[in-house]
Amino acid sequence: MIDVYSWPTPNGHKVHVMLEECGYRLGKDWNAIPINIGTGDQFAKDFLKISPNNKIPALVDPNGPDGKPISIFESGAILLYLASKTGKFLPKTTRAKYEVLQWLMFQMGGLGPMLGQNHHFRLYAPEKIEYAINRYTNEAKRLYGVLDQQLKDNPYIAGKSYSIADIAIFPWTRNWKNQGMEINDYPHFKAWFEMIGERPAVKRGCEVLTEFRKPLTNDKAREQLFGSTQYQKRK
Amino acid sequence: MIDVYSWPTPNGHKVHVMLEECGYRLGKDWNAIPINIGTGDQFAKDFLKISPNNKIPALVDPNGPDGKPISIFESGAILLYLASKTGKFLPKTTRAKYEVLQWLMFQMGGLGPMLGQNHHFRLYAPEKIEYAINRYTNEAKRLYGVLDQQLKDNPYIAGKSYSIADIAIFPWTRNWKNQGMEINDYPHFKAWFEMIGERPAVKRGCEVLTEFRKPLTNDKAREQLFGSTQYQKRK
Repeated sequence: MIDVYSWPTPNGHKVHVMLEECGYRLGKDWNAIPINIGTGDQFAKDFLKISPNNKIPALVDPNGPDGKPISIFESGAILLYLASKTGKFLPKTTRAKYEVLQWLMFQMGGLGPMLGQNHHFRLYAPEKIEYAINRYTNEAKRLYGVLDQQLKDNPYIAGKSYSIADIAIFPWTRNWKNQGMEINDYPHFKAWFEMIGERPAVKRGCEVLTEFRKPLTNDKAREQLFGSTQYQKRK
Repeated sequence: MIDVYSWPTPNGHKVHVMLEECGYRLGKDWNAIPINIGTGDQFAKDFLKISPNNKIPALVDPNGPDGKPISIFESGAILLYLASKTGKFLPKTTRAKYEVLQWLMFQMGGLGPMLGQNHHFRLYAPEKIEYAINRYTNEAKRLYGVLDQQLKDNPYIAGKSYSIADIAIFPWTRNWKNQGMEINDYPHFKAWFEMIGERPAVKRGCEVLTEFRKPLTNDKAREQLFGSTQYQKRK
């Protein structure tokens, strides 16, 4: 049984969707163990051992490549691990593989972090800072434009086949409305978005752990997520 | 001859260092083609063809995996490509390989983007916004703490051997002073930082294209980098 320490955020969803797409079934082949980042579970010593950056998701596979357990943190690395383990959603030929890897890195290094900052300044920051909101809304528009252009000539992000690049990007774009986007401005993206959203494994993956999600309404949760707590515990 | 479209930024340095570490020599085995991101070279149509996200670095290898030219964007994907092509700095055994991959993803998804925002709000934003400066300075401290902890028990980021994880992380930490860090607060990181900085290929790589770097002194450069230009050209 694969254990995934996770939470219903875009980076969590990426792994949940990937597992379901690979044919693993929640409760039968894998467990989702909630790490409530609103109450500080991510600072627990045991969690730190498998996730030294205090972030979800982290995966523990009792049946690693050498038959022994292996733990992996960082959603991008987990997608690569599962693709390699199952032989799915990452092409074997070098050229097609790098097509996927560069778009996976685009998600990891650009789309995810920048949309994360957009979420922060639009939704969570205690003050509304116009400069920051504009900065990250404009960057989000640029990034959706990059996706739209790429999807104009390709049915999937990295070409002809569904891949871990699609799996990585989709969960970050589900909240396009909250990010200040207008989906009709990106028609090629929109067609892709609707197609991916219809996949049964994507639907199942994006529901995992959502029963734990509550609106961020109290100061304690805000402190755990964005306050000084995270900077005190390590040292 | 490998062509690298690049600029003397941390993501550019990553690729310059990697090439030099792999035994390629600037001017003999590879070219550095300056893409002046301060004057808008990144918006040129020809550049967009190899770098659809308008970012440096991008690499063109005339001798790709199938003997035909291949182009790759995103520094993380380029490091993986060169590691695979040369057989260097990425272990072959699955377990050690994922040790490296997760720290590479940590750099791509966390360290790089967050230190980039730190640079922006501390150095480049036209207004000094206390909330944002604190946010990214605190996050930088947390990330340096993660590195320090990891380097307490490991000579290199991903364990016993120098890898693309070190090559990816080092250039982002060279400006620790500008990021508001005090290196003596992170003694294990400091020892690693000094060791990596002494490597001849790292020294050579970090010098590439620096003759083009000028302080960001004029409004035109600021506009190209952070203004509305980047949001107008695509559509």
